[in-house]
Amino acid sequence: MNMKKLLIIGGVAGGASAAARARRLDENAEIILFERGPDISFANCGLPYHIGGAIAERDKLLVTTPAAMVAKFNIDVRVLSEVVSIDRDKKELTIKNLKTGEEYTEAYDALVLSPGAAPIRPPIPGIDQPNVLTLRNLEDMDRIIEALAGKKSAAVIGGGYIGLEMAEALREKKYDTTLIELAPQVMGPADPEMASLLHQELRLFGVNLKLETSVTAFEEARNGVDLILSDGDRLHVDVAILAIGVKPEATLAIDAGLELGVTGGIKVDDHMLTSDPSIYAVGDAVEVTDFTTGQPALIPLAGPANRQGRIAADNIFGGDSSYKNTQGTAICKVFNMAIGMTGLSEKMAKRTGVSYEKVYVHPASHASYYPGSHPISLKLLFDPQTGKVLGAQAVGADGVDKRIDVLAVAIRAGLTVHDLEEMELTYAPPFGSAKDPVNYAGFVASNVLRGDVALFHVEEACNPADHQKLIDVRNPEEVEGGTIPGAKNIPLGQLREKLADLDKEREYLIFCQVGLRGYLACRILTQNGFKCRNLTGGYKTYSMVTA
Amino acid sequence: MNMKKLLIIGGVAGGASAAARARRLDENAEIILFERGPDISFANCGLPYHIGGAIAERDKLLVTTPAAMVAKFNIDVRVLSEVVSIDRDKKELTIKNLKTGEEYTEAYDALVLSPGAAPIRPPIPGIDQPNVLTLRNLEDMDRIIEALAGKKSAAVIGGGYIGLEMAEALREKKYDTTLIELAPQVMGPADPEMASLLHQELRLFGVNLKLETSVTAFEEARNGVDLILSDGDRLHVDVAILAIGVKPEATLAIDAGLELGVTGGIKVDDHMLTSDPSIYAVGDAVEVTDFTTGQPALIPLAGPANRQGRIAADNIFGGDSSYKNTQGTAICKVFNMAIGMTGLSEKMAKRTGVSYEKVYVHPASHASYYPGSHPISLKLLFDPQTGKVLGAQAVGADGVDKRIDVLAVAIRAGLTVHDLEEMELTYAPPFGSAKDPVNYAGFVASNVLRGDVALFHVEEACNPADHQKLIDVRNPEEVEGGTIPGAKNIPLGQLREKLADLDKEREYLIFCQVGLRGYLACRILTQNGFKCRNLTGGYKTYSMVTA
Ligand SMILES: Cc1cc2nc3c(=O)[nH]c(=O)nc-3n(C[C@H](O)[C@H](O)[C@H](O)COP(=O)(O)OP(=O)(O)OC[C@H]3O[C@@H](n4cnc5c(N)ncnc54)[C@H](O)[C@@H]3O)c2cc1C
Ligand SMILES: Cc1cc2nc3c(=O)[nH]c(=O)nc-3n(C[C@H](O)[C@H](O)[C@H](O)COP(=O)(O)OP(=O)(O)OC[C@H]3O[C@@H](n4cnc5c(N)ncnc54)[C@H](O)[C@@H]3O)c2cc1C
Ligand SMILES: CC(C)(COP(=O)(O)OP(=O)(O)OC[C@H]1O[C@@H](n2cnc3c(N)ncnc32)[C@H](O)[C@@H]1OP(=O)(O)O)[C@@H](O)C(=O)NCCC(=O)NCCS
Ligand SMILES: CC(C)(COP(=O)(O)OP(=O)(O)OC[C@H]1O[C@@H](n2cnc3c(N)ncnc32)[C@H](O)[C@@H]1OP(=O)(O)O)[C@@H](O)C(=O)NCCC(=O)NCCS
Repeated sequence: MNMKKLLIIGGVAGGASAAARARRLDENAEIILFERGPDISFANCGLPYHIGGAIAERDKLLVTTPAAMVAKFNIDVRVLSEVVSIDRDKKELTIKNLKTGEEYTEAYDALVLSPGAAPIRPPIPGIDQPNVLTLRNLEDMDRIIEALAGKKSAAVIGGGYIGLEMAEALREKKYDTTLIELAPQVMGPADPEMASLLHQELRLFGVNLKLETSVTAFEEARNGVDLILSDGDRLHVDVAILAIGVKPEATLAIDAGLELGVTGGIKVDDHMLTSDPSIYAVGDAVEVTDFTTGQPALIPLAGPANRQGRIAADNIFGGDSSYKNTQGTAICKVFNMAIGMTGLSEKMAKRTGVSYEKVYVHPASHASYYPGSHPISLKLLFDPQTGKVLGAQAVGADGVDKRIDVLAVAIRAGLTVHDLEEMELTYAPPFGSAKDPVNYAGFVASNVLRGDVALFHVEEACNPADHQKLIDVRNPEEVEGGTIPGAKNIPLGQLREKLADLDKEREYLIFCQVGLRGYLACRILTQNGFKCRNLTGGYKTYSMVTA
Repeated sequence: MNMKKLLIIGGVAGGASAAARARRLDENAEIILFERGPDISFANCGLPYHIGGAIAERDKLLVTTPAAMVAKFNIDVRVLSEVVSIDRDKKELTIKNLKTGEEYTEAYDALVLSPGAAPIRPPIPGIDQPNVLTLRNLEDMDRIIEALAGKKSAAVIGGGYIGLEMAEALREKKYDTTLIELAPQVMGPADPEMASLLHQELRLFGVNLKLETSVTAFEEARNGVDLILSDGDRLHVDVAILAIGVKPEATLAIDAGLELGVTGGIKVDDHMLTSDPSIYAVGDAVEVTDFTTGQPALIPLAGPANRQGRIAADNIFGGDSSYKNTQGTAICKVFNMAIGMTGLSEKMAKRTGVSYEKVYVHPASHASYYPGSHPISLKLLFDPQTGKVLGAQAVGADGVDKRIDVLAVAIRAGLTVHDLEEMELTYAPPFGSAKDPVNYAGFVASNVLRGDVALFHVEEACNPADHQKLIDVRNPEEVEGGTIPGAKNIPLGQLREKLADLDKEREYLIFCQVGLRGYLACRILTQNGFKCRNLTGGYKTYSMVTA
């Protein structure tokens, strides 16, 4: 390792991680960290929770201070310092000191870009009004808190995870809260039927949820702002928070002629190296490759940013570290529920033409006889030929993170649904079940692969053909609460006696509440020579899809 | 598949699972389930929680009733029916009806043994007194509840997971509770320093914990029983609960001449087939192969029993399912703490001569700025050559189950510590951290493998050689709370300035609170030409080991 001068642009997740790792690898390198804002190393992810009050102390959001960075890492931290240009030929940055307005240059041997991503502000008329705010850093947070002080109502525009967390935060503080989302669902990366459980939760906690709605204009109004909505409505709120997504802060890179990817993120190789052999880029600003589809993607999350910063530093100081793509493992708390996901979604599978089969299970988060268990709705996508696990999504009040983490590892390791059948996970009543939800998903998927049962999906349940007949094998009390139109009720316990009433020429589309009894019914029917399929996830999944 | 007559001995985890699966696979087979007790399919694992009151309703412990088994599965369930012998030549069982005392025979094509394991009752004088109870089924539970009614004090003998759960249950009900354990630690399969955190918790919640103590005799006493202890003490309690382990119920198998393993469990192949080609055995009664050591073992847990029952049924009905050994993934709640483990323990590694290195980390269960986070003490064992993950143990108040599950999958999939560095797990502040505890363990272990830092362990800290010097790099305030005898304090922030005071001939044994600052110090020292190693897990691990 030669003595190096390393400059880093951006002092938060990716940048600060690269700086710290760089120092650990090279005690003698000169390392300068430039940050436009007043703070480095803060907890972006905690911002909504300070607004909502869960994190009471603002200071807790400062993970590390410049002083600590100096003491521990001997890093030259320059806050309120905006890098305004990169001269790649001279290997030199121009920096503007935002306190004094002064500009100066600084040369580098190696450069790391971690400028992050900026909230998208589309050119909607009136969007620049002072009461239309976005949230990225502590100053934004302070502005939002100030704007809300003493006020009553707020709208969040955008139902991604930041929008959802903001809607929760606002309700925690008892604001009249409207959440406006252009798509028919919140949490865009998730599949719609999974997100529908969040819609229920949002409404339960008093969020006025407006799906398939956009804001066509913001109009100035006394004490706030009027939102003109695509459905013609005018909504007056005190404060509007825009959370419709982020886009890579790529201006510096573009101006310097660095290559961008098709997504608009900075293009990097698996060593996090850009098209310039002295410049690395990491974090929200870069384009990654999606682990399951192999497609270019923007997946702006903190874990990848931190790890990429570390990898860039490794490679700068003589190591050989490669980034192994992003699975998109993510989670979001929505009041008492959580939604988690990893790997391929059904949406993405359809978009990219990946062939898949899917199953749903709705087991308890832990032994149902022990207090505090809640159902988890778990969707699993797998390769219908090899059984390889491709993706998973889960929604529930308990244990969602654990199951998605377990499945994230399974996907990473290339495991199949048969491996899930055998997975040996922790079990005691407060924590799980002798057969974990992950095992269940494995059983159900494996039974399909082995041909022990054939599935059908909700789309077919809604439009059965003439030769098909829907049969609800739940008990009459359950059927009273709602069933699929056109279904005949034969409770599972009576099925064996009623076989004579059935017709071997028809195909029976069987369903129960979650899929288990439907499966048992199918096993009885199949072995008695009837044609049948089971609705995966049962009436519960039907309700999610048709919600 | 021919029409079969399948007999099953034991109606709970393994037996009931085999019966249910068998019916799904073959609608026409005759299936008879024999259970000695009055109940089938009950939640053994919930018994302590009904005693402690967490599970208020006794009925919740009955997962399935004989009637439901008939309705759903058309299985002939015979409770209060003890199988008293197996005639392998005739393929016939002799069954005793415990209601009538009558005996009769029943022939089989295939037989599944799932008789479980019985609590060990060693021949200690006086052990047969009525107030010395064990816990295996609902009747035992009822007896314990009755014996405790209106009483004040109880002793639990044995600190395995059932003993620990019973101690907790007793304290929940405010009994004066003594826990007596022969070994120097509770939770035998765990390593001692991990168990030491449970010792603290037990004492905190008022359990009178007596380690390295045994009961040499039980003496009759008015209103209870006197325990004569190995330290000479006499302890009077109202009720004594014996929980010193279980042993396979192998009598039937032995009498029938089936082969046993070296552990005393019934010997089976990976299809769960015994030495008789018509007889399968599953669950607590069988000997398994330990996944990481390849050694024969008894690992009596519900998950394996359920899955083995399913596998046996598969193989009986023409399938080809194999059991892929047991990792020993387990968890136990001890008041507000949980201890979890999977794969190889250090104890077992030493016993079996497996070469390993170990690291400790103590990160927060989720972002520490978000409420409700607690430190997790995580120990990771890995192969010092290949980096393959061999085993993990964790103790903490939150998130232990999740990390052990993630690591259980990693072990199953043959992943290395480098894979753990890259693991992409769910992160939002309520659930995790941008770098999960599993990632931390991966970083720390990988740094050791890459040679970026050398480790030392507590044993060495206690006996440094002359050329070695212990250095505590924590802040003086922390040192005041206790340090390792003989250590010199140089806070990390001052280390760079104090390098001149150090000696290149010596070896510095560096430590901090959890290992992170010690690592940073080692990086500084190494790069400045000093010899040093870092105490993995820091002073916190030291305290656990020396507790
Ligand atoms: C409200 C909110 C909640 C979030 N919650 C989660 C979550 O729960 N889970 C999760 O995984 N992720 C979450 N994220 C995303 C996560 O914070 C980002 O993925 C991560 O911070 C990206 O790291 P980065 O280093 O690429 O960018 P950032 O952390 O955004 O850091 C970039 C820094 O670069 C500075 N900068 C930009 N240009 C220049 C320049 N020219 N000169 C000097 N400085 C410059 C910026 O001021 C900024 O501080 C959240 C983000 C927000 C805003
Ligand atoms: C208090 C307690 C707590 C537990 N907690 C946990 C936990 O948290 N996690 C975990 O993984 N495991 C736990 N276990 C262990 C788990 O219950 C067992 O591993 C599992 O039940 C084993 O299943 P099995 O079918 O082998 O045996 P069992 O479930 O014990 O079933 C065997 C049945 O066979 C019957 N039987 C035996 N011989 C005959 C015969 N000759 N004729 C007729 N019937 C016969 C017995 O009466 C018994 O009901 C716990 C066990 C107990 C007792
Ligand atoms: C604070 C910050 C600068 C820390 O960077 P860092 O020093 O790399 O990270 P950590 O403090 O987590 O320490 C990790 C390092 O310590 C080591 N370490 C951690 N625990 C250890 C232990 N017990 N023993 C030995 N080493 C340990 C790790 O191996 C790693 O070092 P390596 O990368 O050289 O392998 C950076 O994480 C940051 O800015 N975070 C806040 C911003 C952010 O992430 N926001 C988005 C999420 S809200
Ligand atoms: C109650 C008991 C008999 C149930 O046995 P079981 O029917 O095999 O188990 P479950 O009810 O969990 O159902 C699992 C089956 O339903 C299927 N299934 C579960 N959910 C499903 C869904 N949503 N859709 C389709 N199939 C589903 C599984 O694939 C599995 O079938 P398979 O083995 O043929 O693949 C048995 O588990 C038992 O006795 N348990 C209590 C005793 C015990 O385990 N004690 C120790 C722990 S406390």
